[in-house]
Amino acid sequence: MNSTDQVIEAIKKLVVRGAPAIGIAGAYGSVVAALEAQRVVSSNQQGYFENKLKALEMARPTAVNLSWAITKMRSVFESSNKTFDTDLIENLLAEAERIHKEDIDSNLKMATLGGHLLGAGAVLTICNTGSLATGGVGTAYGMLAEGYKMGKVTLVFACETRPVLQGIRLTAWELNRARIPYRIICDNMAGTLMAREKITAVIAGADRISANGDVANKIGTYSLAVLAKAHNIPFYVVAPTSTFDLNLMSGADIPLEERDASEVLSVLQGKTPKFDIPVWNPAFDLTPNSLISAIICERGVINSPNRERIAETLKAK
Amino acid sequence: MNSTDQVIEAIKKLVVRGAPAIGIAGAYGSVVAALEAQRVVSSNQQGYFENKLKALEMARPTAVNLSWAITKMRSVFESSNKTFDTDLIENLLAEAERIHKEDIDSNLKMATLGGHLLGAGAVLTICNTGSLATGGVGTAYGMLAEGYKMGKVTLVFACETRPVLQGIRLTAWELNRARIPYRIICDNMAGTLMAREKITAVIAGADRISANGDVANKIGTYSLAVLAKAHNIPFYVVAPTSTFDLNLMSGADIPLEERDASEVLSVLQGKTPKFDIPVWNPAFDLTPNSLISAIICERGVINSPNRERIAETLKAK
Repeated sequence: MNSTDQVIEAIKKLVVRGAPAIGIAGAYGSVVAALEAQRVVSSNQQGYFENKLKALEMARPTAVNLSWAITKMRSVFESSNKTFDTDLIENLLAEAERIHKEDIDSNLKMATLGGHLLGAGAVLTICNTGSLATGGVGTAYGMLAEGYKMGKVTLVFACETRPVLQGIRLTAWELNRARIPYRIICDNMAGTLMAREKITAVIAGADRISANGDVANKIGTYSLAVLAKAHNIPFYVVAPTSTFDLNLMSGADIPLEERDASEVLSVLQGKTPKFDIPVWNPAFDLTPNSLISAIICERGVINSPNRERIAETLKAK
Repeated sequence: MNSTDQVIEAIKKLVVRGAPAIGIAGAYGSVVAALEAQRVVSSNQQGYFENKLKALEMARPTAVNLSWAITKMRSVFESSNKTFDTDLIENLLAEAERIHKEDIDSNLKMATLGGHLLGAGAVLTICNTGSLATGGVGTAYGMLAEGYKMGKVTLVFACETRPVLQGIRLTAWELNRARIPYRIICDNMAGTLMAREKITAVIAGADRISANGDVANKIGTYSLAVLAKAHNIPFYVVAPTSTFDLNLMSGADIPLEERDASEVLSVLQGKTPKFDIPVWNPAFDLTPNSLISAIICERGVINSPNRERIAETLKAK
């Protein structure tokens, strides 16, 4: 990818996905936008750059990490002399690298904090939250991998995660590479799994967390949280502070992306009837804080998350 | 299909599926077995016939309609003079036709009884329970179609029903043909659907119901029942008396079929990573009676099903 538009396209088409990875891609994309601005006539450079930042920011609506990263990149520009010279490029690149590096560090801290929370046994996870979704070892994936290293996690069940199948396509790849024992399940098998097998924790990532601890994440997360509650299984969310949006009082304010019906049908190409099939395709759902046992971020474990405890933990450095 | 083995193969490979349809196929398959027996030497005819009945009965383990139908066919043979003559064939065929006809009648009665239970609004269903799964208008499908005819059901949401996608492949076809407005959802969207839209009922079929009203049905049914309970949405099961197995005290005694991992992966051919992916593929799950608002069978509506109420209703003719 060597143009801002290619970065934007890659984010829109899920070539780059996973909230933290999208943030990092947005940061490096901003550097590319500044390099492109150098090649337009001086009077248009700032307008060009700002338009590209806006387009980057709007590539996906739900994950806040993207706008969080773009806001950081924009600050670097705002506090510069607004000339598209080598200094600006270097400062932007340094900021993007800092965002990337911070994500790597956060991943490691969350993995350790989360690993300690786990009991012995099997865990269930959803979507993809490892190195293919973040800058480092991952969020939910980092926690369960650390739990495995600690000798506590015996088996990982991973939801295939319709419609785009991040579980079967990406998480299976990560678990296979790490030689962590696992089984893929179809998403509708989660309930019977919890009823029939001993599952010690359900672990998910997040795309945006409001000030009170409501969590927007991949579609299917909310169902897992309800099912976990009904089976007395702890439900953990693992996300860096860049995923928190303290401007939003509750999850009701988080924009939840709906995506095209073709996303549901295309995977099944040739297996569906030949007429037009109407599909509802919400890509994200909202899990209220009441269903969450703890949110693990790099600054600490927030048990039974609410506004006060989140504010308290996020202040800590 | 013109041999018993072809019938058995069709049931095993899900060419014929849906508990009532399997029962009917088993009944007609028994007639085919008797015709085949006519062509083997006399001394082996009864052994041949009994072996084929046994093989038919064992083609699928969970739906009890199959063994229920075979038991009826076996009784016809047992009460005959055990000669494979035209009389026997005619009696067996008459019994198979009676089983088929009874299913058609039961479907109509359940549709009417169920339709009256529904409020106005959208409903959610799972798997396939219409004319492609039964001898008549269907079980759960018959109820929702009747509710639509009554002007109460405004929209049907149908789970795609992984792994074999009966929802998107069969129920979509039935709804499209009947011009009933519908949307397909991925199975993991059911929770957020219940939280965000007004769903007035969740309606499922059944493969086997124990004496106390526990229900074995397509994988994913149990998750829907837990989610419905959490959202105060009535959860209905529609099944003819041939689906009840009063010999089993509770659902714990129902054999739940697990099927091959390839069933999960084959639909996604070419979209999955190239290494062996371990998969858990339970084909059925168990919904305890406590999560079921009512079971609708052709003999009546069994509210809050338990042993006494089921015994009472099944006695009625």
